[in-house]
Amino acid sequence: MRYLEDFKVGQRFILGEYTFTEHEIVKFASQFDPQPFHLFADHPKTIELGGLMASGWHTTAIFMRLAVASYMEDSAILTSPGVNNVQWIRPVRPKDTVSGEVNVTGIRLSKSKPDRGVLTSEARLWNQKKDDVLSLETKVFLRAHPSQNVTS
Amino acid sequence: MRYLEDFKVGQRFILGEYTFTEHEIVKFASQFDPQPFHLFADHPKTIELGGLMASGWHTTAIFMRLAVASYMEDSAILTSPGVNNVQWIRPVRPKDTVSGEVNVTGIRLSKSKPDRGVLTSEARLWNQKKDDVLSLETKVFLRAHPSQNVTS
Repeated sequence: MRYLEDFKVGQRFILGEYTFTEHEIVKFASQFDPQPFHLFADHPKTIELGGLMASGWHTTAIFMRLAVASYMEDSAILTSPGVNNVQWIRPVRPKDTVSGEVNVTGIRLSKSKPDRGVLTSEARLWNQKKDDVLSLETKVFLRAHPSQNVTS
Repeated sequence: MRYLEDFKVGQRFILGEYTFTEHEIVKFASQFDPQPFHLFADHPKTIELGGLMASGWHTTAIFMRLAVASYMEDSAILTSPGVNNVQWIRPVRPKDTVSGEVNVTGIRLSKSKPDRGVLTSEARLWNQKKDDVLSLETKVFLRAHPSQNVTS
């Protein structure tokens, strides 16, 4: 298990790959973001915008899936207070394969709760052409190493 | 159809309601955010954190669904460049019912593309106890009214 002290500023985590299918794009959009350019490849607005594209919320959800698999699932994470500056830089289309990385930008031990702290990171996803499609700043609460707190 | 000129700063849109079920929380998490406190009610970390809670990305996806139904689906929206300052203020638990509102904070016609502009808003969701669970700042590209562009 990776604790707050096991991270360092400048550390980089490489994310795996995920290929978006038209079926998954439409399924996500029909549940959560039913706008025509996420649902119907032949809608006039979709054609005007260059074709069907994934909901931005689908792209952030896939980022999360890749981040959990890459480094979060073996870290002592205690939820997240939020994210900042989410940019949907380019559309994600059917058959696009995304990958990405997360770079640690800050580590701060809590003053009020010394058994935990906040880890901040900058994350991005790009597509198979190496064009960025998503960037965001993430924050997570992380448990400090138990041995650091024996006497506190 | 509602165009950029049909919005005004200070305008408020009321969102509908959505009740989270344990089944939907676990289903979303298993696809996109498989951390124990989103998946397993009886996991020690889940119990420590007060019980099963929805992924924050599930909460933002439900916000989107409510926003599309409330005012986006009859607006001339041309995708979104991003969102800012997403705050997951409190956990959303099984059987919680959320509702919310969107307040228009800015309207700006594009200088380079006078057929469109950017609408900015502040949005929030609260639960059945009227405690806020989510806030975020949204941006969308919106078509200007076609009649405004006949001679441009």
